Amino acid sequence: MVTFTARHNSQPLKIVMQASVSDYREQINRELNNYSFGQQPNELYEPIRYILSLGGKRLRPLLVLLAYRLFRDNELDKSVLTPALAVEVFHNFTLMHDDIMDRAPLRRGKPTVHIEWNPNIAILSGDVMLVRAYEMLLEVPPNQLAAVIKAFNQCAAEVCEGQQWDMNFESEAKVSEDEYLAMIRQKTAVLLGFSLKLGGMLADADETSQEQLYEFGEKVGVGFQLMDDWLDVYADQGKFGKQVGGDIIANKKTFLLIKALEQAKGAEADTLQYWLAQTDFTNEEKVQAVKEVYEKLQISGQTQEKMNTYFEQGFQALEQLSVDDERKAALRNFTQQLMRREK
Amino acid sequence: MVTFTARHNSQPLKIVMQASVSDYREQINRELNNYSFGQQPNELYEPIRYILSLGGKRLRPLLVLLAYRLFRDNELDKSVLTPALAVEVFHNFTLMHDDIMDRAPLRRGKPTVHIEWNPNIAILSGDVMLVRAYEMLLEVPPNQLAAVIKAFNQCAAEVCEGQQWDMNFESEAKVSEDEYLAMIRQKTAVLLGFSLKLGGMLADADETSQEQLYEFGEKVGVGFQLMDDWLDVYADQGKFGKQVGGDIIANKKTFLLIKALEQAKGAEADTLQYWLAQTDFTNEEKVQAVKEVYEKLQISGQTQEKMNTYFEQGFQALEQLSVDDERKAALRNFTQQLMRREK
Repeated sequence: MVTFTARHNSQPLKIVMQASVSDYREQINRELNNYSFGQQPNELYEPIRYILSLGGKRLRPLLVLLAYRLFRDNELDKSVLTPALAVEVFHNFTLMHDDIMDRAPLRRGKPTVHIEWNPNIAILSGDVMLVRAYEMLLEVPPNQLAAVIKAFNQCAAEVCEGQQWDMNFESEAKVSEDEYLAMIRQKTAVLLGFSLKLGGMLADADETSQEQLYEFGEKVGVGFQLMDDWLDVYADQGKFGKQVGGDIIANKKTFLLIKALEQAKGAEADTLQYWLAQTDFTNEEKVQAVKEVYEKLQISGQTQEKMNTYFEQGFQALEQLSVDDERKAALRNFTQQLMRREK
Repeated sequence: MVTFTARHNSQPLKIVMQASVSDYREQINRELNNYSFGQQPNELYEPIRYILSLGGKRLRPLLVLLAYRLFRDNELDKSVLTPALAVEVFHNFTLMHDDIMDRAPLRRGKPTVHIEWNPNIAILSGDVMLVRAYEMLLEVPPNQLAAVIKAFNQCAAEVCEGQQWDMNFESEAKVSEDEYLAMIRQKTAVLLGFSLKLGGMLADADETSQEQLYEFGEKVGVGFQLMDDWLDVYADQGKFGKQVGGDIIANKKTFLLIKALEQAKGAEADTLQYWLAQTDFTNEEKVQAVKEVYEKLQISGQTQEKMNTYFEQGFQALEQLSVDDERKAALRNFTQQLMRREK
């Protein structure tokens, strides 16, 4: 289990609010199922329904709704729900295109779109998904439309930039900690920031609140990615959805490997370089050897420390938000649950 | 030279208006050059500047400006120019992605983005271009924003649908005339329709006028594609930018081939099928043989007739538009010049 600094442990509304999250998730799934992305040609629209049916936690639209709920108690109508879906559709658009680029054969245990159909269809279906995300954003209140699209554009471009940096890093010998943190911020964290900010915008919250929500999402988003990196090495295989050590086997430049390469000297540096260059190996042996280097360099603790710093910064932004503390319980609990997950 | 029914030959403002078109083109190119698409990572933004620098007539943004000019004489400011660029950026986004799907090595005589860089970069740069097109549309007057984005979304999705139909048709034995016309309408004509409508929207024209402008663009757009099909077979090689007969050599399902397959019987049908199946041939011989079938079936005349019908329908929509006839001269002349081109 990941340790982290839990600052908000008094949760009087916990049970009620947890029920709400699963209600919201159900509502999001219902709306996604009912949304008409298009019919013909089938090759264009079937992959959209396919990738959205593969499941997922619906984390991003949930953040939209939970942020909205900080300010409003009214029934959730289309002007809130449909823009929340936009974020999920956008996220899945990036997955569809990233899977082509990464040549990923599987997504949530099922064939990726470019495998089940072909890469051309994955390109074009993805393009239409991005268009449909903008269509969904049109449901926001008219006075918010320009600001919402502006913020979404900024976020969408940053996600693409992050993906490009990530691809660039694959062929670079050395990536610095700062470069890595900037990349994961763009590739994964800004969309959490935007989701939360969107909830605030839909509730007509003031700009300071919107920025605090954005910062909360952005900071915990970086923390979650660091947690992913950490879990890939240290998760309990019985509870972990994928192969523990997968990043080590693939030489993926995670926070852990970057810190290890930065700090390793002498024998540790030689061991790391040996295993990075090795093409013929048994997975267990390589994972074990790299983990030993990590242990000598105390990489696990350093990663958790960095992760906790981001989580703390995120929660500080949430704390500063001018909303009654009780109202923050649902969002806080939900986020803390994600911080406790072992995948 | 293509013959067509010219209904509007009195052009008192011709010289002035032609000067305007080249002024507008220059202005569009200047604005495109000055627009900041982004800097880092370079792999993401350099391909955008590259594809836009390959030239082109800037037909679509010109249509935006010419349609706007039907209603307004004021200086063109950013609220008109930037949305006009959006259409060009969107068009080039579709070219970047289509070139991957079509495995095209060249675009305007230069390496395509997926060749000059790689397919991943072409996917991701294209994605950012689409985002930037939406960013450019944010410059429209606030009261028009929702309607503009709605119309753009509809157009963008149809362009993707048209591309998917086009890819589907490649592997279908039989494509009907109606299916083909519906495909080219989506793939190429609706964007001309949208460009003209956008000009009307920016000028705050009434909805009837907007629809008439759309229809004008849509109908002449189908006509232009039929003209492309015709020129590929019958253009003067000395004036034609690509290989005459290229579509015949590649078995491309153009309007001409579709009509010929529909009407050929006996010996003509056998000849067509023979050349469609043949893999080892000299280009001249195949082109000559297929052209002879086209001649026997009078395919050239049928294509010109269909093309002229679309041109006429388009110009009827323009005629019905409640704007002084003199104001229509620039748009009319520009379109008629395009109808006279031999590429």
